[in-house]
Amino acid sequence: MSAAPHDRPFDPESAVFRAHEGGKLGVHATQPLRDRADLALLYTPGVAEVSLAIAADPSLSTTYTAKANTVAVISDGTAVLGLGDIGPLGAMPVMEGKAVLFKHFGGVDSIPIVLESGSVEDLVETIARMAPSFGGINLEDISAPRCFEIEEQLKERLDIPVFHDDQHGTAIVVLAGLINGCRVLERSLPEQRVVVAGAGAAGVAVTKLLQRAGVRDIVVCDSRGILVPSRVDLTDHKRALAASTNPRGVHGGLGEALEGADVYVGVSGGQVPEEDIARMSDGGMIFALANPTPEVHPDLAHRYAAIVATGRSDFPNQINNVLAFPGIFRGALDSGARQITEAMKLAAARAIADLVVEPTRDEIVPSVFQEGVAAAVAAAVAGLA
Amino acid sequence: MSAAPHDRPFDPESAVFRAHEGGKLGVHATQPLRDRADLALLYTPGVAEVSLAIAADPSLSTTYTAKANTVAVISDGTAVLGLGDIGPLGAMPVMEGKAVLFKHFGGVDSIPIVLESGSVEDLVETIARMAPSFGGINLEDISAPRCFEIEEQLKERLDIPVFHDDQHGTAIVVLAGLINGCRVLERSLPEQRVVVAGAGAAGVAVTKLLQRAGVRDIVVCDSRGILVPSRVDLTDHKRALAASTNPRGVHGGLGEALEGADVYVGVSGGQVPEEDIARMSDGGMIFALANPTPEVHPDLAHRYAAIVATGRSDFPNQINNVLAFPGIFRGALDSGARQITEAMKLAAARAIADLVVEPTRDEIVPSVFQEGVAAAVAAAVAGLA
Repeated sequence: MSAAPHDRPFDPESAVFRAHEGGKLGVHATQPLRDRADLALLYTPGVAEVSLAIAADPSLSTTYTAKANTVAVISDGTAVLGLGDIGPLGAMPVMEGKAVLFKHFGGVDSIPIVLESGSVEDLVETIARMAPSFGGINLEDISAPRCFEIEEQLKERLDIPVFHDDQHGTAIVVLAGLINGCRVLERSLPEQRVVVAGAGAAGVAVTKLLQRAGVRDIVVCDSRGILVPSRVDLTDHKRALAASTNPRGVHGGLGEALEGADVYVGVSGGQVPEEDIARMSDGGMIFALANPTPEVHPDLAHRYAAIVATGRSDFPNQINNVLAFPGIFRGALDSGARQITEAMKLAAARAIADLVVEPTRDEIVPSVFQEGVAAAVAAAVAGLA
Repeated sequence: MSAAPHDRPFDPESAVFRAHEGGKLGVHATQPLRDRADLALLYTPGVAEVSLAIAADPSLSTTYTAKANTVAVISDGTAVLGLGDIGPLGAMPVMEGKAVLFKHFGGVDSIPIVLESGSVEDLVETIARMAPSFGGINLEDISAPRCFEIEEQLKERLDIPVFHDDQHGTAIVVLAGLINGCRVLERSLPEQRVVVAGAGAAGVAVTKLLQRAGVRDIVVCDSRGILVPSRVDLTDHKRALAASTNPRGVHGGLGEALEGADVYVGVSGGQVPEEDIARMSDGGMIFALANPTPEVHPDLAHRYAAIVATGRSDFPNQINNVLAFPGIFRGALDSGARQITEAMKLAAARAIADLVVEPTRDEIVPSVFQEGVAAAVAAAVAGLA
């Protein structure tokens, strides 16, 4: 897995391509259609009664259509995995994969919808117009900073949960890992000095959620260095981040940010030189989440940190969004929540952390296949709806 | 079934509402997800190889995603069954029912998408933007005349089949019935005098398809009477229809249209007085397709016509779109057709007619549950792709 996937030639005989033949999703009827009597119940004339009842009382649509258990997984293909803007068709296998995970782990029916890209307004209009079909909207792999505006506008317009998983799913699982990491190291999370490397979708959301969890000293870097208010090259979201972070007023690049830092969270994809990592305080945590090539190789990271996490399944402590999103939507759908609130995200992170009964340096988050993860997350979310 | 469904109270204990609890559709993975190895194939990191291959060659999306077998069933709820504008949520049970039929009869995975209504441009933009997700678009229950413009614009913009079933599905099955009706009555279809009552989605499409099948003498009526070019109240589509029909220049209402007519096709919903029906020529055909209340009750119709068809399952000769649309899309998807052409519609109608080995007055179309209907229609459509 150390080779980047795009180094590989297209091989239709390989296991990956064989597993994708015909796609990964199907649709099925949940009711038998055996004869004219069934037809008259499921379609005309019987269905007209249901349609009229819903037209008279739209809330009945959650009982008498599949909407209440159906989430749209929507992307425009502009920021797919670490591959960049590969377009809606390129994004489709990822969205189908996500739908497979939604079903497997959360029992959520989800529908992959890939969109021709366009302006923020174009995407918001399109998604808002189709929203009556769904019980929730999972945004995926939409480039920053458009993704922030799109999510915010949709949250304002719609009365169903809207959740950009690249932001919040990542943030929730990172927070879960840091909670348990602090337990293992017997440290106080709010007192950690944290560096977030990357100010895209994930970096922004990680920073905001850590702030809500009480972390006070966060320094955020993008590819040009530390976010500080004096920089003139910042987007609105980065400017807001610069204003709310970096309480010690550190200037410079990632190396300066890492001076004395307790925690490094990499969501950038850029490689970090060893001399920068060496500036961290002893015995801290390195979360190098770029996939498939972490910003710091785990072997190197272990020389400077007590706890190392990556996005990869072949090292301990895999920070994987699948720990969060199936349970988040399961809980939101079951409770009829109209939003995924910040409190729900915090509760989800704590629930994930609590699933590790005895956290160790090599087990700060549950395994993806641990039983009951989605149910615990769902209960935490539903409890706040 | 003679009572209109909206006369019935909402009864959650009734069979219809029980059959709709939780909706009628689900989504499932077509590949096993058992362990980390499966996860690495179906999702990251493996999926990245497939995404990149598709980004490099978009035609691979038909092989490696579910798109090639997936049709969107799209409505804005403005003309649902005979119920009118009941909104997107009210339309949802009908779209789910349609999806059940697509799967059962055609093996087509279909996804119900209901849209907040809007202008023609709004709907075209929304549908075109989501089109990369699908192998075809089935438009449904969109009010006339918007439906004509929406379908035309989408056909021009998209390279996947777009098919407004209320128009073309109805027209295909009506034509199939008339073909066999003429066989039974030993008449020539092109020589029949036909009255089409109703100039909405179905009426327009029936008229056009009958013209393509060679019928020369068609008189079309809307609720205000016969479409003639001198009328000043006609929409563009009705004006075009007025110009291309009514070769004898008949003026007046439905009664005048029916004077000496051989065939009545009712797709209007309005009741026809007996004295009007009595003006038809002897031994013709009455297709009274309004559902659940035919424009002419079959018992009455039989006094004036040799062959009577309705939209109802409790009388002989049910003109039901389900004879057409599953096979139409099955054939289009299997053959990679980019459009459903007029030639395909004619071929589909002939294929449906030919499935009745020995047509009789009480059997001019196959039963909905007759084996092999969709396969025969699919073969006819695919043969022309």
